[in-house]
Amino acid sequence: MGDFKTLREQAFAANMEIPRRGLALYTWGNVSAFDNTAGVFAIKPSGVAYDALTADSMVVVDLDGNTVWGKLRPSSDTETHRVLYRNFPGIGGITHTHSTYASAWAQAGQDVPVFGTTHADHCCQAIPCTSLLSEIAVKGDYERETGNLIVKTFNTQKINPLHVQMVLVAGHGPFTWGTDAIKSVYHAAVLEEVCTMAFLTLSINPQTQPLPAHIINKHWERKHGAGAYYGQ
Amino acid sequence: MGDFKTLREQAFAANMEIPRRGLALYTWGNVSAFDNTAGVFAIKPSGVAYDALTADSMVVVDLDGNTVWGKLRPSSDTETHRVLYRNFPGIGGITHTHSTYASAWAQAGQDVPVFGTTHADHCCQAIPCTSLLSEIAVKGDYERETGNLIVKTFNTQKINPLHVQMVLVAGHGPFTWGTDAIKSVYHAAVLEEVCTMAFLTLSINPQTQPLPAHIINKHWERKHGAGAYYGQ
Amino acid sequence: MGDFKTLREQAFAANMEIPRRGLALYTWGNVSAFDNTAGVFAIKPSGVAYDALTADSMVVVDLDGNTVWGKLRPSSDTETHRVLYRNFPGIGGITHTHSTYASAWAQAGQDVPVFGTTHADHCCQAIPCTSLLSEIAVKGDYERETGNLIVKTFNTQKINPLHVQMVLVAGHGPFTWGTDAIKSVYHAAVLEEVCTMAFLTLSINPQTQPLPAHIINKHWERKHGAGAYYGQ
Amino acid sequence: MGDFKTLREQAFAANMEIPRRGLALYTWGNVSAFDNTAGVFAIKPSGVAYDALTADSMVVVDLDGNTVWGKLRPSSDTETHRVLYRNFPGIGGITHTHSTYASAWAQAGQDVPVFGTTHADHCCQAIPCTSLLSEIAVKGDYERETGNLIVKTFNTQKINPLHVQMVLVAGHGPFTWGTDAIKSVYHAAVLEEVCTMAFLTLSINPQTQPLPAHIINKHWERKHGAGAYYGQ
Repeated sequence: MGDFKTLREQAFAANMEIPRRGLALYTWGNVSAFDNTAGVFAIKPSGVAYDALTADSMVVVDLDGNTVWGKLRPSSDTETHRVLYRNFPGIGGITHTHSTYASAWAQAGQDVPVFGTTHADHCCQAIPCTSLLSEIAVKGDYERETGNLIVKTFNTQKINPLHVQMVLVAGHGPFTWGTDAIKSVYHAAVLEEVCTMAFLTLSINPQTQPLPAHIINKHWERKHGAGAYYGQ
Repeated sequence: MGDFKTLREQAFAANMEIPRRGLALYTWGNVSAFDNTAGVFAIKPSGVAYDALTADSMVVVDLDGNTVWGKLRPSSDTETHRVLYRNFPGIGGITHTHSTYASAWAQAGQDVPVFGTTHADHCCQAIPCTSLLSEIAVKGDYERETGNLIVKTFNTQKINPLHVQMVLVAGHGPFTWGTDAIKSVYHAAVLEEVCTMAFLTLSINPQTQPLPAHIINKHWERKHGAGAYYGQ
Repeated sequence: MGDFKTLREQAFAANMEIPRRGLALYTWGNVSAFDNTAGVFAIKPSGVAYDALTADSMVVVDLDGNTVWGKLRPSSDTETHRVLYRNFPGIGGITHTHSTYASAWAQAGQDVPVFGTTHADHCCQAIPCTSLLSEIAVKGDYERETGNLIVKTFNTQKINPLHVQMVLVAGHGPFTWGTDAIKSVYHAAVLEEVCTMAFLTLSINPQTQPLPAHIINKHWERKHGAGAYYGQ
Repeated sequence: MGDFKTLREQAFAANMEIPRRGLALYTWGNVSAFDNTAGVFAIKPSGVAYDALTADSMVVVDLDGNTVWGKLRPSSDTETHRVLYRNFPGIGGITHTHSTYASAWAQAGQDVPVFGTTHADHCCQAIPCTSLLSEIAVKGDYERETGNLIVKTFNTQKINPLHVQMVLVAGHGPFTWGTDAIKSVYHAAVLEEVCTMAFLTLSINPQTQPLPAHIINKHWERKHGAGAYYGQ
């Protein structure tokens, strides 16, 4: 199966964006990069500080959860990543952080309304916040159940995971994804900024209403629609 | 018509102030520099990251919207810039950002009252926030209609765009301008700071009243009046 | 008794984490490293700026408060450290900062509820805030009484100081500890982040409830329990 | 009278602390250093960016307001500094900034209560906020009247300017002072931090009461009293 060098380099580069963008302290957070053809993903090893990471410390895991390359233990959140790759076809990278404002919204247990075009440029509806994990789920395979909860939230609310590439896990924090690893980190940075602005917006005017649909759709379509043309 | 080297260098230098001042993430935001004699402006190309920008990547556009120099596509917000240059005589540069606090005020849909001299030193009245764009406007030429909305806001409220060099587009974010490109970015940084202070001011004391007119006018006049003498 | 070189180097390295992590301005804050066998701890000297610190400027103090190495005066907070080492067996380092959000919670005089897993990963219950020191205590040995107040808070509420390695002293600020000095600074950084998120959480949703016990316990156990396996 | 080289170097070094500590944007803010024997002070020139400042660009002004050294125009706020040196014997440096949180408290027009020991370590009572300048005062010599308003505030409330070395000018921002220029900037940084913590404290618990007098006095006395011993 080779040594997955390119995939590990992509995962490494994307992981290093987490401290550079200020999205997590210490070893918190992790990014994986998925190779759809090989059916494997490279992910941050468990508990290693960012300044000690290299492409060679990444761990490669297949969709059944077996480590196929690497000597370190994969991130504890590997099962969550695995469930998302299995259930959200078309995504190529996943990021988990404890970024400050996104985690605060997750702790508050609230969806983030579309208050402005910074949000609508990246996500055409409110960013969903899951329910809290049940006691049974927590006593099972916790990290796998976290993935299942995200998938269930999207299925129940009929949200397309290629249109809404971010979620808040209630009482925990954000997971984001994208067509590749670096885009999943980009979405993590966007989500943190959107959550910051939404907090401030409600502080300035607690009665603020979401943007009307015609503006949300315009911003989404000009970047992601059939006739997309947008770039600042 | 030449290669507009000086104008492109001015636009490039002003664009680079955006990441330096922390006024936008990634490729968000754009600055243009206007040459009134030639009737053209140089603007950031669409979707290029700041650390990949050069003076040679700028695009020069005339007041009819034709590209007269450059190979890249101009910023998607070019039409908004063009409408402002056409309607606000005397301005020489325009900046658009998604800076955090200014965008939050825009999302809250509220004018920013003059709470202190930091504001009054740069703008002698509340910073106006437009209404939301109508569905008809959004379905037309969206970016042009954004410019038209700004112009209409200033005309309806009889605001002099040389005295109030900044605006919040509701649900979107700030546009600022100045006699040249670098001053328009200066106004974007001032606006972000003024919006931060105004948010904090209302949090500390929700009943805060705007400054009395005699203090607003003094601060404005000592920097911008006939007998201006101010410098810290 | 030797020159405690290793202990002083540990204390020095841990003290330098304070400015690096933005946990205090100027000379504020201090870290000590404890050698349980020798019964001594190395602590920051009083009133020395961080960029002037060296391992040789550390002061070594025994559990009776006698300076056993070093020429400078130990931190004014030395008595507080000494009381904690005497009463909390098993801790190997202590950090005191005036970090912004933790100090604000201390000033507000409130325990920090467990709103999320960032908190539960490090502390399995609310972070306690002491009562205010009485007038009698303040007129006695103030710094020693500060230590006594912390110990009394833990004893009265039956809190295990090896499970809750952080406290807010009402009207003052945070003290944190750990099995060694660098871990005590780690806890100071964690506390600041947890306090930031808790402030934001209540601002977004003032009715936010603490996490249910099954999630708190899961996060605590997977990092600190008998079968701990966690690392991001 | 010589060239005031030492005084100008002190003023220059202290001015450079303003951008280093993040206390003002662009050219905002100014520091002066006072030589009591010569009866002159060195102050930042008007409108010069911090990265263009040198000790040779400082301006030296006497207590009658005459420039006695330097070719540039002194800061517009020179008259405010002059009034404070004339009326507050014993101070050796003054700093004016537009730091964000202190300016927000000034805009809110509120004294900053002593909520914690970070405050009490540096100032033994609430930080006073002046009233707004009257229309008559503004139409007179505005900057001189700003100084007069500060002096009147301290006299009316019987505040000792050597004990309270900071003030908020309503609707404007902070002025701080100290026994020398660098200490006045230190107080500006302390004030910004104290104002940040006070804002957060009230956000967390709007009913927070000021510290009891016995704790305020202890912290003040251990740093500034006859038997001062404090250093972290």
